[in-house]
Amino acid sequence: MTTTRQLRETDRTRHRRLREQGSLDRDVLDAVLGAGFVCHLGVTVEGAVMVVPTVYGSDGETLYLHGSVASRSLVASPEAAVCVTVTHVDGLVLARSVFEHGVNYRSAMIHGVPRLVTDPEEKLAGLRCLTEQAAPGQWDYARRPSRKELAATSLLALSLDEAAVKLRSGPPEDGDGPDAALGLWAGVLPLRTTWGEPEPDPALPPGMAVPPHIAGSAGRAGGGQGERQQ
Amino acid sequence: MTTTRQLRETDRTRHRRLREQGSLDRDVLDAVLGAGFVCHLGVTVEGAVMVVPTVYGSDGETLYLHGSVASRSLVASPEAAVCVTVTHVDGLVLARSVFEHGVNYRSAMIHGVPRLVTDPEEKLAGLRCLTEQAAPGQWDYARRPSRKELAATSLLALSLDEAAVKLRSGPPEDGDGPDAALGLWAGVLPLRTTWGEPEPDPALPPGMAVPPHIAGSAGRAGGGQGERQQ
Repeated sequence: MTTTRQLRETDRTRHRRLREQGSLDRDVLDAVLGAGFVCHLGVTVEGAVMVVPTVYGSDGETLYLHGSVASRSLVASPEAAVCVTVTHVDGLVLARSVFEHGVNYRSAMIHGVPRLVTDPEEKLAGLRCLTEQAAPGQWDYARRPSRKELAATSLLALSLDEAAVKLRSGPPEDGDGPDAALGLWAGVLPLRTTWGEPEPDPALPPGMAVPPHIAGSAGRAGGGQGERQQ
Repeated sequence: MTTTRQLRETDRTRHRRLREQGSLDRDVLDAVLGAGFVCHLGVTVEGAVMVVPTVYGSDGETLYLHGSVASRSLVASPEAAVCVTVTHVDGLVLARSVFEHGVNYRSAMIHGVPRLVTDPEEKLAGLRCLTEQAAPGQWDYARRPSRKELAATSLLALSLDEAAVKLRSGPPEDGDGPDAALGLWAGVLPLRTTWGEPEPDPALPPGMAVPPHIAGSAGRAGGGQGERQQ
């Protein structure tokens, strides 16, 4: 028997509204993070909030972000509080009334002060985590970063200690209210994200086979290693 | 002959890095916004950055956001500078080296101070825009908001005047460099977002037909009216 691992509540992660959409289950957090590889990083740069899409990797304890050492959003992040949000949109909730319309989604929000990773071994491990999050098998397949490339890359580590998860699934909620008598159709229009067929670089020699770890992706749920490895 | 409409450059929207991925073409901004209905709203709440996924509508001049009057992120937004980012992930760029890996994407970032919409007529028009962005035809089909529902809804209007667009498409860029000699496969693994078959609310009477404006969605590119109406 396993015990459910719980996220701790803080002022920033407490679900104040729509509490039924909140989860404090650590495994749910892992599943949401595992199902994606692109997050939105919120950071204050020169006094203004910026929300930057960027790739991430999660090892279950730490979220890794990377970028050029010249990136303004990354340079601003170490020692500054950030918010990283990962969102999967699963469908449109089409209710009988406009007011009850909504979105089925899974979302994780992580708060914290990122740490700039300088230890060479941890830096490699973090970049491996990032690469494998989006494309499992690719770290062992592609050429790894050179010393010069590592020096040109900033890696940030953000603890998953302060995180909140929100989700909604299922049909609209006005099916047993007065609007049900309107006789309108209601339901969910699902949204699916899937990998397509690999598109070879035109610079490749003709007829080169797609490696198995990539070839097996087409048609599968896309977005991250968590869903691809099912 | 049409003149290309240009976005103005400001300190916040100037593309400093990877300038080749930046666009100042207003029509590109419209296309990116039209292809989605979920954005990430960045706002400072009680001193901390929060990045909140939420739906939006764009009429080409103004981005509309809405939420409960009790929502902390919305309540904090009027009169406070925000950043709203819309991102579409189109594929993984699998290069020969880990360093050259990347993402094909389209992203819009809008900066500004949102205005709380209080005029009843504009509020209805904004909510219509929001609803039609995700589900064209739904505003005329579903029951419109009552006076009480309108009072429970905050609508924010954010000018599109200060916006930046970034995009990347195409194969990896190390096909003509020294890594080409490694003999590794390289290319793009596309990511596709499509609408699935509508799922009727179990509370509906059996056999009720899906209305045409919803039934036609399945299999089409998902995410917003811009792509669905192609």
